[in-house]
Amino acid sequence: MINPFFKNHGPFLISELVSNLNINSLNLIKSDKVNNIKDLQSASVGDITFFHSKKYLNSAIKTKASYCITNKHLANFLPDECKAICVDNVLLVTSKITSRFYPEAIYDNFDSTVKEITEIDLDNSINHGRNILIGHNVKIGKNCSIGHNTIIEKNVIIGSNCSIGSNVIIRNTILEDNVSILDGCVIGKKGFGFFPDKEKNLRYPHIGIVYIGENSEIGACSTIDRGSMSNTVIGKNTFLDNQIHVAHNNKIGDNCIIAAQVGFAGSSTLGNNVLIGGQTGVSGHLKIGNNVQVGGGSGVIKDIPDNSKVMGYPSKDLRQFLKDNK
Amino acid sequence: MINPFFKNHGPFLISELVSNLNINSLNLIKSDKVNNIKDLQSASVGDITFFHSKKYLNSAIKTKASYCITNKHLANFLPDECKAICVDNVLLVTSKITSRFYPEAIYDNFDSTVKEITEIDLDNSINHGRNILIGHNVKIGKNCSIGHNTIIEKNVIIGSNCSIGSNVIIRNTILEDNVSILDGCVIGKKGFGFFPDKEKNLRYPHIGIVYIGENSEIGACSTIDRGSMSNTVIGKNTFLDNQIHVAHNNKIGDNCIIAAQVGFAGSSTLGNNVLIGGQTGVSGHLKIGNNVQVGGGSGVIKDIPDNSKVMGYPSKDLRQFLKDNK
Amino acid sequence: MINPFFKNHGPFLISELVSNLNINSLNLIKSDKVNNIKDLQSASVGDITFFHSKKYLNSAIKTKASYCITNKHLANFLPDECKAICVDNVLLVTSKITSRFYPEAIYDNFDSTVKEITEIDLDNSINHGRNILIGHNVKIGKNCSIGHNTIIEKNVIIGSNCSIGSNVIIRNTILEDNVSILDGCVIGKKGFGFFPDKEKNLRYPHIGIVYIGENSEIGACSTIDRGSMSNTVIGKNTFLDNQIHVAHNNKIGDNCIIAAQVGFAGSSTLGNNVLIGGQTGVSGHLKIGNNVQVGGGSGVIKDIPDNSKVMGYPSKDLRQFLKDNK
Repeated sequence: MINPFFKNHGPFLISELVSNLNINSLNLIKSDKVNNIKDLQSASVGDITFFHSKKYLNSAIKTKASYCITNKHLANFLPDECKAICVDNVLLVTSKITSRFYPEAIYDNFDSTVKEITEIDLDNSINHGRNILIGHNVKIGKNCSIGHNTIIEKNVIIGSNCSIGSNVIIRNTILEDNVSILDGCVIGKKGFGFFPDKEKNLRYPHIGIVYIGENSEIGACSTIDRGSMSNTVIGKNTFLDNQIHVAHNNKIGDNCIIAAQVGFAGSSTLGNNVLIGGQTGVSGHLKIGNNVQVGGGSGVIKDIPDNSKVMGYPSKDLRQFLKDNK
Repeated sequence: MINPFFKNHGPFLISELVSNLNINSLNLIKSDKVNNIKDLQSASVGDITFFHSKKYLNSAIKTKASYCITNKHLANFLPDECKAICVDNVLLVTSKITSRFYPEAIYDNFDSTVKEITEIDLDNSINHGRNILIGHNVKIGKNCSIGHNTIIEKNVIIGSNCSIGSNVIIRNTILEDNVSILDGCVIGKKGFGFFPDKEKNLRYPHIGIVYIGENSEIGACSTIDRGSMSNTVIGKNTFLDNQIHVAHNNKIGDNCIIAAQVGFAGSSTLGNNVLIGGQTGVSGHLKIGNNVQVGGGSGVIKDIPDNSKVMGYPSKDLRQFLKDNK
Repeated sequence: MINPFFKNHGPFLISELVSNLNINSLNLIKSDKVNNIKDLQSASVGDITFFHSKKYLNSAIKTKASYCITNKHLANFLPDECKAICVDNVLLVTSKITSRFYPEAIYDNFDSTVKEITEIDLDNSINHGRNILIGHNVKIGKNCSIGHNTIIEKNVIIGSNCSIGSNVIIRNTILEDNVSILDGCVIGKKGFGFFPDKEKNLRYPHIGIVYIGENSEIGACSTIDRGSMSNTVIGKNTFLDNQIHVAHNNKIGDNCIIAAQVGFAGSSTLGNNVLIGGQTGVSGHLKIGNNVQVGGGSGVIKDIPDNSKVMGYPSKDLRQFLKDNK
């Protein structure tokens, strides 16, 4: 599922990839070809990967990648078949090398491949409004409805019985059957990811997509950013209210209900049957279990186990919150 | 005022309405006709209504409805002339029966009745931009201004001297004179109301409208959802800033000032002259009095009496908040 | 830099300006001409200014303005060459007189000067999408990209190498080189500024602009309002995430990183290298120093000195916040 849309410009010679990066490349065979860049788990022989934190040790010791961008403290954990490329800033170098494979994934200029919906041949008849633009590599299932002024940029697959509102912008996204996207949403743009630099921040590529499961609904004026190395996922039968922000790499489970103006900072995972009250914020890189209920206005900055009810900023056990605020 | 727009597909035979709902209908006269579904207070002879909570007891004992969806614990409170239809889940059955009368009020697919503003006859000349779409049953008063790319879907009444920005979407709404709707707003869509179900949530109809009183202003990129069985109301001379969310059934009074990014969860009532600071959240089903001031960032989860100043999450007396946070 | 766009309808006779304002004008020479209205510091001989709070005493004693709207308590601080016009409500009268000079700065009706981008001559070739509208007095630099359905209203200067997304609305704004404005933003509209009145609030003019420094990025569906008497400024290489609200007169420094759904209430100043977590709110008229870090979800209601790390609602020292919430 990862990266069905962005074109891989590889293979590259390893010597090409590391040139201009100020890397000690004595141990590299310059004529080796590198096919792709992937994370530790999904990389195969011939790929390059990256390893920047001990959190990923279990994946690192088993990676099948031929090369790995890492640092001198972590290099020894890699398998013998994987050549370490030791650098000071692993993520920065990873970003630069990813940009070589996927240069189109950095910038999100508007899609110049679009045509008016009335000018193109679609496999299925669509109940559509006026002034709709459709880009390359767009597939739309049966019995869909698309509102006025909506732009489906390139690289979008829409299932059957979907309803897309008016003034919507979608790119790099897969919608399963019976999904509703309400008016004014922006789905699939690059995430807010870059390396700060005093002169000019360096954006890193976002080669992930947005995936939305069947029967789900996204409220008006919401924004869902696509993933960087993985995908942003909304499960089945999950309903989001208006003005919600879902940053890159979040995975939201099935049957969740998320009230208006909630924000997800990025790379967090929600279980199934999670209820979140309005205006709650969920920090990055957290794990929220199944059947969790979060009261409105909360700030979630820690993992939450299954079946918990929490509220507050920072969020705590709901009974404790109510007791503390009697 | 309630429901001037959605077409009532009734009358239906009572036997038709209850078929497929697994209802014990022995006490029903199958050939009885039911005209409409309304709440306890506004229902007349020949209508069906619903009664799901003792909170509405005062209305229930006086209802004029001929039928009432309720449960076996509440049925005895109804007048003799009103036949109880006892079910386990009153709101679910109410939703299903409402959908029979008002099937168009469930889904908000784009309005296919629209035409370019230059293609239609309007009663008044309008100062309008380009690429504006206007649906059926739209009335626009004198001396109005409508910006580019704006969509006025069907069932909208706009008073005189109103200014609608660009990229706005409005449906099922009444604007009184001298109202300003700024760029990018979405006004009158269905609210975030449904019955959760593990396979596929069941949306209930929203047959209410959005009503905005004279001289009011709605800031850019705000969303105001229409009501379900009642209306969403913004009073006279009330100003909302940008990125505000007003959910279904809220009633906001006159001369209120609501700062940016505030959210209202639904079915709350605000008095007149209420000031609310930015990013405040107001929970559902609350009563906020007249002349109330709420500090920015607050979370309001309880009723607030007239003339109070509150702040905090959850909100408390302002002096207490300042003292607790010295 | 202040006010390059709004047309000054002056000069006016001082007698014209004060008529209908119920002002004691015995000390005024009725035939005196007034060229412009400016703040205390920037006003020159022949201009009118205003002085409403002792906070501005240092500027008041040195103002070069010929007239000053003030009250009887402050009038004595003005230089001899500056004639005091004493009123009860300084800001209200200032607003009314400003409206005489700049009547176009009060209302933001859509721009009727726009033409389709394909109908106009631009100095530079632009990589543009479909259905783009461009108003009077718009300049666009080299190598820019503008997405579909975007409206560049009158009075916009765009530098080179800028990328404007789709469904964007911009007016009264200067963008330096290499700025990115993502999809769905509304930039340069009037701020949320008015004098409350029980019958009909009185909006005051916004004659400032929005200025965005080079290399900066504004996330999707954000709103940045133009200034009232000064400008709203975003510094160089400052990145804003999605759904951010920047109210009138805020000045944000260089190299700042502002996460999604943050809101700035107006007239605050941020230093350089400031990091702000998602959903934080910053109250009005504050001074946030350089190198400040604010945790997500915070409510900032006091000034923050340089190099501080804060979090909480209201925000406090980060270590204290973490200790209090262990």
